Amino acid sequence: MTGGISVAEYLFRRLREAGSHAVHGVPGDYNLRLLDYVIPSGLEWVGNCNELNAGYAADGYARIKGIGAIVTTFGVGELSAINAIAGAYAEMAPVVHIVGTPNRSDQDNGVKLHHTFCRGQPGDYRIFAEMYEKVTVAQENIVDVATAAAQIDRVLRECLLQSRPVYLQVPMDMVDAIIPGTPLAQVFDLTPAPGDARLEQEVCDAILDRLRTSSKQFILVDAGTPRYGLTSQTHELIKATGFPTATTPFGKGIVDETLPNFHGIHGTVGPHTFTSYVDSCDLVINIGPAHSNVNTYYFVTVPKPEVTISIERDAIHIDGRTWNVSPQGVLQKVLESLQENPLAKPTSYPELPNLHQALQSLPPVDPNAKLTQDTFWYRMSSFFREGDIVLTETGTASNGSRDFVLPQNTALINSGIWLSIGYMLAATQGVALAQRHLTQSDHPLSNGRTILFEGDGSFQMTAQELSTIIRQKLDVIIFIINNNGYTIERLIHGPQESYNDVASWRFLEAPSFFGAEGADSSYPVYTARATTWGELAGVLGRDEMRAGKGLRMVELMMETMDSNDTLRLMLELWKSKKAE
Amino acid sequence: MTGGISVAEYLFRRLREAGSHAVHGVPGDYNLRLLDYVIPSGLEWVGNCNELNAGYAADGYARIKGIGAIVTTFGVGELSAINAIAGAYAEMAPVVHIVGTPNRSDQDNGVKLHHTFCRGQPGDYRIFAEMYEKVTVAQENIVDVATAAAQIDRVLRECLLQSRPVYLQVPMDMVDAIIPGTPLAQVFDLTPAPGDARLEQEVCDAILDRLRTSSKQFILVDAGTPRYGLTSQTHELIKATGFPTATTPFGKGIVDETLPNFHGIHGTVGPHTFTSYVDSCDLVINIGPAHSNVNTYYFVTVPKPEVTISIERDAIHIDGRTWNVSPQGVLQKVLESLQENPLAKPTSYPELPNLHQALQSLPPVDPNAKLTQDTFWYRMSSFFREGDIVLTETGTASNGSRDFVLPQNTALINSGIWLSIGYMLAATQGVALAQRHLTQSDHPLSNGRTILFEGDGSFQMTAQELSTIIRQKLDVIIFIINNNGYTIERLIHGPQESYNDVASWRFLEAPSFFGAEGADSSYPVYTARATTWGELAGVLGRDEMRAGKGLRMVELMMETMDSNDTLRLMLELWKSKKAE
Repeated sequence: MTGGISVAEYLFRRLREAGSHAVHGVPGDYNLRLLDYVIPSGLEWVGNCNELNAGYAADGYARIKGIGAIVTTFGVGELSAINAIAGAYAEMAPVVHIVGTPNRSDQDNGVKLHHTFCRGQPGDYRIFAEMYEKVTVAQENIVDVATAAAQIDRVLRECLLQSRPVYLQVPMDMVDAIIPGTPLAQVFDLTPAPGDARLEQEVCDAILDRLRTSSKQFILVDAGTPRYGLTSQTHELIKATGFPTATTPFGKGIVDETLPNFHGIHGTVGPHTFTSYVDSCDLVINIGPAHSNVNTYYFVTVPKPEVTISIERDAIHIDGRTWNVSPQGVLQKVLESLQENPLAKPTSYPELPNLHQALQSLPPVDPNAKLTQDTFWYRMSSFFREGDIVLTETGTASNGSRDFVLPQNTALINSGIWLSIGYMLAATQGVALAQRHLTQSDHPLSNGRTILFEGDGSFQMTAQELSTIIRQKLDVIIFIINNNGYTIERLIHGPQESYNDVASWRFLEAPSFFGAEGADSSYPVYTARATTWGELAGVLGRDEMRAGKGLRMVELMMETMDSNDTLRLMLELWKSKKAE
Repeated sequence: MTGGISVAEYLFRRLREAGSHAVHGVPGDYNLRLLDYVIPSGLEWVGNCNELNAGYAADGYARIKGIGAIVTTFGVGELSAINAIAGAYAEMAPVVHIVGTPNRSDQDNGVKLHHTFCRGQPGDYRIFAEMYEKVTVAQENIVDVATAAAQIDRVLRECLLQSRPVYLQVPMDMVDAIIPGTPLAQVFDLTPAPGDARLEQEVCDAILDRLRTSSKQFILVDAGTPRYGLTSQTHELIKATGFPTATTPFGKGIVDETLPNFHGIHGTVGPHTFTSYVDSCDLVINIGPAHSNVNTYYFVTVPKPEVTISIERDAIHIDGRTWNVSPQGVLQKVLESLQENPLAKPTSYPELPNLHQALQSLPPVDPNAKLTQDTFWYRMSSFFREGDIVLTETGTASNGSRDFVLPQNTALINSGIWLSIGYMLAATQGVALAQRHLTQSDHPLSNGRTILFEGDGSFQMTAQELSTIIRQKLDVIIFIINNNGYTIERLIHGPQESYNDVASWRFLEAPSFFGAEGADSSYPVYTARATTWGELAGVLGRDEMRAGKGLRMVELMMETMDSNDTLRLMLELWKSKKAE
């Protein structure tokens, strides 16, 4: 394409090229012209109920599809979404936030337009962009046709390379402005700058030396791994070394849990801990660390730097020494070397948990007994199958997910840093759409289900996004833990306090209220409630639930103060730390 | 009280003294200890479904009760609420935003706690406070017992005096810290600094001179009037001068609409305009101006400075000359002088609209005809009665409210600057609670109803707050305009575009879904749908609707592109301005 193209079409075509086949958002008068170009550019428009939810949905979409996008209007819209974008920043989700802004001349003249503070100052038009500088890794304001294409390419590139949100302002009078279409002839260039081969070899040698000279090793995989593009190399390393491997809670789901040297989550509480083994290791390989308090059992499971190879986005630390190097090239050399000269087979393998065995040896339940969280999460593992994407909301669900034993080729989405409750339902909308967009039939997640576990309190935060799931006819299974309020807060403080109560909703009326048409429509709905193990088994055994088509919503009645032991013990640890 | 008192109790007791008998918010682990003190300090706790809604509710509460408060948790909570606080800033609502933050030592050490970006920098703990500096008029962080009381008093005072939001951070380990209780013995001092009597007299004389020497006058009352504490003096001035008076759209409801010299809204479109009269005046008294584009018909109704006395918060402008003076003292002197020496009676009164007459002369409707917005808003006027607080959401409802003819002692809440859709339902929760808290039996609004008009698209933004209305058993009447999407956006751009559609909800199922118990419970629920004028008359005639106790929810079926003429004409004007 050598002719001219409008700014908006250029933007959306590049966005599609970058991997997002959908744009989430809410219309507003400053972005309507922009929205005219979404569908003609080959993207799906998803109108969410509000902007925070749209941000969460775009984030969920990005975690599966590799990039997501949201369009909001200036001021009210972008501020409503800022918590979602801050969460994407914290948890490294590549989201493009596009803001439709007033005409350039109105901004330059400080015209007292709605959605501003009407102080008549041009600076009023920069306030929200200044806030966004704190929560995005690149920002551009499209005010000049000469630079528009390069600006758009720059933010998209930074979004993908840094796996973090970016911010793009498009004034109304720039939407239709014509820019040269020539850059589109070039495929969007995402090749990272070539690494320094000599430096990479040096780091590779240092790593190989540690691999070969250490005697007791451990691989700890964390949330940065997929975000830095290291998932495949990590699996090769786990297989090539045979070293005992675990994930952090936030890293759960990244590693194939059927590998014989995978041992679950490295934690300090719960039935399957092995901290004494890890503490005695002389080598820990920590890939993609994300050391928040909740992801490290209040920093207890952070590996000791003096015995650790820590692999980050742009640096590798070995035993406390730092090399500023991109890890892909280094790992490539390490893996090639291990293929040529495999490590010596160890004479023995340590005694570490075998989760599949533990799962199979769970005692049978009394079908008439009430559901309890002590084994609920373990037992749900048998419901999962290859291709499933499982989302667990912050609270008892996210903590419960530490007990899941996952099949191959599944994904788990939880929150390990930002912990903004309400995120997960709206993210589920984005995830289910992304799963539908994984059109390559050989993508490991394209044939599974989207399954959400969420509490009653968090459901209430963003409940209306269920209507977007229904409107887009997305296939989703939702388990709502109805335990009468914010149980995780009760466990932290104020178990009896009214501030931890929430309103009593009739959750299973949600599909009807939000417009779903019933079991026989083109978008079938199935709802059920389970209070006992027997009822749960009945529900999980139904064809509708196994197939996961349409909307399936199950209300699980749980005791107010029930949680699994892991959570209870962890919160005790946490409270003692806070009191210090 | 001369002994010690905890920081939290001091804060909440001062807040109650300042006038807020409720705290809205959402619990989170960094604010739970703070919440322990809410009820014991004599305040009502309202747990909203999410923080944006809590912010809106606190704003609504503040607009009726004079001050409102919200408690959120650090990071996720405060960012979710920031659009509501920015709206309170833009529209001058006195809201105290209290944020529960991590322990001081964790902040000082940059500990990688959840709800931060986990970069290990102490500066990470200031990011959100820096954002809040842009949307609040005073900020304090309570880290020292020696200054805590003075800091709390300062932000509350600024909140009240400036009628704008303030921001207060309370680290977890400061909540229980003991501070001297002695300041509580002093009544919270809100007396403004005494004015300069000589300057006030000078301005008074200049105003009197203009009152007496002008021949054609007009009073334009705008939204700043109640926010600067000028409502009562404004009414005295309207009565004492007898000058023709109108409000702006945002000022609607401030002036007693039964006064003989009140003529509705000063606008450029619609059936009752009188711009030629205003344009020919040689004196316009503009009280509390808020000159946004939507409040001034794109700046056409902004009075000409050379013939205008403009009365602002801290300044009075006369014919373009500015005095920096607080208006209360000046107006007091003007009113006293007018009492002693009344203005000469004018020989004639101009021909200006009489809205009560216009209302009575509306032709009868065909009961079988469908509801249409051309006269719907006028006709709703007969449903209102003294004491009512009427809220109209941005969109067709807010624009429709320009046609209301209100009884004495009513209040109207619409949005004239920020225009964040979704605001109004959550604000209704705060307003209904504030109305209940107006315990003085002689308060003009204490015996009326809270009545909301809202569109389907905006209802979806914050729908879950209906459950808080239900949980708090608040008396509310809700009219939902079901017109199949964002009609105001369709009128602006993209009438047929799918981005202006919203999901089809079964709106009248909302009370049941959100937990209400039915018509016979202690909190009665009544729902109805009206498509024709006859159906509407039937609904409005019912005792349940007239009494306004419990929850009354009416779905009004309107045509997708229907609006009143005023809105259609105004948007045409607006689009032509934008295209310039």
